[in-house]
Amino acid sequence: MTTDIKPLLATSLRTHTCDNLRKSNIGETVTLSGWVHRRRDHGGLIFIDLRDRYGLTQLVFDPKTHPKTHHIAQEIRSEWTLQATGKVRARAEGMTNTKLETGEIEIEVSSFQPYSMAKTPPFSICDENIEANDDIRSTYRFLDLRRGNLIANQTMRFKTTTAIREFFTQKDFLEIETPILTKSTPEGARDYVVPSRIHPGTFYALPQSPQLFKQLLMIGGFDRYYQIARCFRDEDLRADRQPEFTQLDLEMSFVQEEDVIRIMEEMFSFVFKKCLNLDIQIPFKRMTHSQCMEYYGSDRPDLRYDLQLVRVDEIIKRSSFSALKEQIGKGGIVKALPIPNGAKFSRKEIDEFTTFVGKFGLNGLAWMKMSNDKLTSSIVKFFDDDLQKELIANTNVNEGDLILFAAASEATVNQALDHLRRHIAEKMDLIDENRWEFLWVYDFPLFETDKDTGKPTSVHHPFTMPNEKDISSLDSEPLKVRAKAYDIVLNGFEIGGGSIRIHREDLQRKVFEILDLSSDQIDQKFGFFIRALQYGTPPHGGIALGIDRLVMLLCKTNSIKDVICFPKTQRASDIMMDCPSAIAQNQLDELNIMTK
Amino acid sequence: MTTDIKPLLATSLRTHTCDNLRKSNIGETVTLSGWVHRRRDHGGLIFIDLRDRYGLTQLVFDPKTHPKTHHIAQEIRSEWTLQATGKVRARAEGMTNTKLETGEIEIEVSSFQPYSMAKTPPFSICDENIEANDDIRSTYRFLDLRRGNLIANQTMRFKTTTAIREFFTQKDFLEIETPILTKSTPEGARDYVVPSRIHPGTFYALPQSPQLFKQLLMIGGFDRYYQIARCFRDEDLRADRQPEFTQLDLEMSFVQEEDVIRIMEEMFSFVFKKCLNLDIQIPFKRMTHSQCMEYYGSDRPDLRYDLQLVRVDEIIKRSSFSALKEQIGKGGIVKALPIPNGAKFSRKEIDEFTTFVGKFGLNGLAWMKMSNDKLTSSIVKFFDDDLQKELIANTNVNEGDLILFAAASEATVNQALDHLRRHIAEKMDLIDENRWEFLWVYDFPLFETDKDTGKPTSVHHPFTMPNEKDISSLDSEPLKVRAKAYDIVLNGFEIGGGSIRIHREDLQRKVFEILDLSSDQIDQKFGFFIRALQYGTPPHGGIALGIDRLVMLLCKTNSIKDVICFPKTQRASDIMMDCPSAIAQNQLDELNIMTK
Repeated sequence: MTTDIKPLLATSLRTHTCDNLRKSNIGETVTLSGWVHRRRDHGGLIFIDLRDRYGLTQLVFDPKTHPKTHHIAQEIRSEWTLQATGKVRARAEGMTNTKLETGEIEIEVSSFQPYSMAKTPPFSICDENIEANDDIRSTYRFLDLRRGNLIANQTMRFKTTTAIREFFTQKDFLEIETPILTKSTPEGARDYVVPSRIHPGTFYALPQSPQLFKQLLMIGGFDRYYQIARCFRDEDLRADRQPEFTQLDLEMSFVQEEDVIRIMEEMFSFVFKKCLNLDIQIPFKRMTHSQCMEYYGSDRPDLRYDLQLVRVDEIIKRSSFSALKEQIGKGGIVKALPIPNGAKFSRKEIDEFTTFVGKFGLNGLAWMKMSNDKLTSSIVKFFDDDLQKELIANTNVNEGDLILFAAASEATVNQALDHLRRHIAEKMDLIDENRWEFLWVYDFPLFETDKDTGKPTSVHHPFTMPNEKDISSLDSEPLKVRAKAYDIVLNGFEIGGGSIRIHREDLQRKVFEILDLSSDQIDQKFGFFIRALQYGTPPHGGIALGIDRLVMLLCKTNSIKDVICFPKTQRASDIMMDCPSAIAQNQLDELNIMTK
Repeated sequence: MTTDIKPLLATSLRTHTCDNLRKSNIGETVTLSGWVHRRRDHGGLIFIDLRDRYGLTQLVFDPKTHPKTHHIAQEIRSEWTLQATGKVRARAEGMTNTKLETGEIEIEVSSFQPYSMAKTPPFSICDENIEANDDIRSTYRFLDLRRGNLIANQTMRFKTTTAIREFFTQKDFLEIETPILTKSTPEGARDYVVPSRIHPGTFYALPQSPQLFKQLLMIGGFDRYYQIARCFRDEDLRADRQPEFTQLDLEMSFVQEEDVIRIMEEMFSFVFKKCLNLDIQIPFKRMTHSQCMEYYGSDRPDLRYDLQLVRVDEIIKRSSFSALKEQIGKGGIVKALPIPNGAKFSRKEIDEFTTFVGKFGLNGLAWMKMSNDKLTSSIVKFFDDDLQKELIANTNVNEGDLILFAAASEATVNQALDHLRRHIAEKMDLIDENRWEFLWVYDFPLFETDKDTGKPTSVHHPFTMPNEKDISSLDSEPLKVRAKAYDIVLNGFEIGGGSIRIHREDLQRKVFEILDLSSDQIDQKFGFFIRALQYGTPPHGGIALGIDRLVMLLCKTNSIKDVICFPKTQRASDIMMDCPSAIAQNQLDELNIMTK
């Protein structure tokens, strides 16, 4: 193999990139290519910061040494692309820029030629903060991309996928491509479909995940598979959802939960070291689904701060506080949220919390403060001394702390206090942005009750293995069956989830039946998969990880659009391209479809 | 980071994989998991070859040492999956298998448990040659995948993409994901489209390539981009085409042809070293498009053998061979195909060649043989001595050689002799399967005449930069303008092609106009792109490489289906899954479409 003797990124149009000249290059004649980032006309001298993906280098056009070149350079404007040749020289004393890698040198330009001119951009490329609205930025995405943070984010994204690939290659996984034109699978969301021209009246579906393909690969003997896979869901978009998204999809044969969890922890450790040069601690914390709900009211708690919920039904029952007791009587629960140093909150602030939880269906909050070693508030009178002591002990409050109480149905209390907990953490600045708190959540229920039909539906998906200890309850108490499933939570975001899968045909059929699929429906939708299970299926399991969200966290940005080069809007459009758009009648005719 | 102390692929269900036990492990108690590959009942002893992705290990069930285990093992059948625990021991003398990595040892099984049973597969997993027809193999693709060559091919595919990624990472490229839900772009083929639910009556298109996205990334300042990208074309399939395919897509800023060519040569060198441990010679050969057509009648000649065509119009004109002269009179041409050692072909064989070329529209072949230092055949009489000498000199024939002559239109002669050349190379066994002959073809015309409309159409695509020397001819003689385009050919397969792109708005508009697009059409289809060109576009260029085909060549297989885990049929179906298939009426309703 030949090797470059020139600098790494030299091409026939440049000898160096805009980041790599230093004092040691002084005296060399170099050629740079890039964009005009800033242009300053200082009376005689013209200075240009030339920009490329890698950095900035200062060009100087001097009327004394190169009058003709200087004269033409007066025409140059921002965002032109050009090639400039000249000698590297030291910047004048007092003119060095320590913030810039190339800040000690400049190029005394002897000749240049523009490649292309540029209209005035609709927003500034060089300012850190951007004043343009989202529509303008989307329309001119090709300019928005030039801004430093998008290039840095894409570099982080590439580092992340590169590290993931490197890790799994070491572990003997094969990355395998699965089809994009496939059959509708029941992941719970709406499919994007593609009409077939050759088979009129039929459609392909874009995959919501490669779930069945990866299980077929395990049946096919591939043992260890992963893929950085594009997935598609035609859902009404929320802030952090895109119609197409990227997931790390992974499956292993001859494994149990512990094997998948262990390899993923190693992977995160590897990736965080490579991407952020951070040593994260493994193994991660673990919590059952019911513990999560109990202590945090959520199955994806942010553990960067404490603020645990405490169930206080038993204390309330023995109090004379009828407003809360009533809720228990109606089948509800009462939880306390003790807030260290929360006694400083004013009446008005506590009223704000009450308004805040109202958005989640909670009708009010009761509160007590710890002051002079005792609880104070208008409701303390409903609790005798012993009960107060018990409350203090259970909520573990100290001088200056606040306790908030919420009573309603379990779901409402949990949802409201989960949001309130996060709201208060932000308000009290309790979140250490430099902490990375991973958590495995396990022992999910296999089924939950569908709100619309009242029937059992899969919490994850119908291929999830039930806990062996609960299999005998599948018929009698399906809602009590635990799944061999695990979610991975990072800083309060669910970034992935997986499970051990069913590898026995009879068990898979049983689960389909509990999901109320008839034999015919099973055969029609999953016939091929049931058939595949009949020919020697290894025990297997895996996980899927949201790459967009993981990279978003690694980049410390709060929008997924900051880590995708060409994102869609909330209405699933690309404004720049005008997409989706109408297609020609002959295309529709060939596809044997009509629009309404 | 924690490290494994157990063998690399150990999990909670196995201590080793089926490839890694050796004599040094004798005496160890191990647990293996895998498939029953072969089962032999030798009177007392039962032998099982246990298989996983990595290899085979022999299990022995001995009725003397483990009577109960042996008894149950009698039930085991092919393709069951099971876990077996036992002691590693040396195979008996004379029973070692030198072909197998684990051939010196076996496991004396003390306990085992099946994970799953298996029906009898519809075809054998262990035989190298498979007797089942394509439909059965497609229906049971999950079983076909278990066969060794498909796993080996996927391993080669993974090695290839891993090497490509490693190479471009070293060269500071970023792999960037571009959208799959996008706008129809004019790559010349039919688009797959996706109806939008949110915007009734509109459609996304699946990308035929990320062409415009990668150019937008260059405009966005990303400098060096690549992607192993899924692409889609709704074409009537030929043997080696799939509705979705994978390409290495690459683009660089501030480059000329030479830069792209050089980095690709380095990449091939790196990939062939990593994948096949071969040192291929770079730089590759180069030939202009017109030289290719002249010498090989094709723009993707297989250079593993010689057999060059020779244009002999001038000699024929001076002969009295009226049959061929007539063709020249009608605007045709005459080419000779000299075949070393071809004089041995019988009359019958030459007749076969004539029939063969008939399929490509050629009405006949004339021929001469070199025998006793002179040309012989029934047509030699039409050539005087000087002409014969000239013919011998031009075709460079020697004793025992054959010359075939074809006369017709240039296109017909080229097409027929290209096929005949390949046919004869196979027949004469001239192809060295261990040779890798790369060739760059360049100086393509920018436009060709569309057969249907008679108007100029792009040979590559409308974003290809014309050769600067020919730009002045764009209006007057567009068909004579050469493109800054280059194709890469390997062993007679076009495996990729690329170009320097237009970076000037005015030139891009001009090309669109030559392609007969009105201003309105330009704005409607390419408005966003023309706009992007107005804000400072760097000179840029790139290439796209067919990964499926490259891997097919690396695997020395002749079907693209051997390197894709879940390929579609010629009718673009997945027989295993029954895809494409009908979708529910409510899905159609939500999408605002009807089927005819």
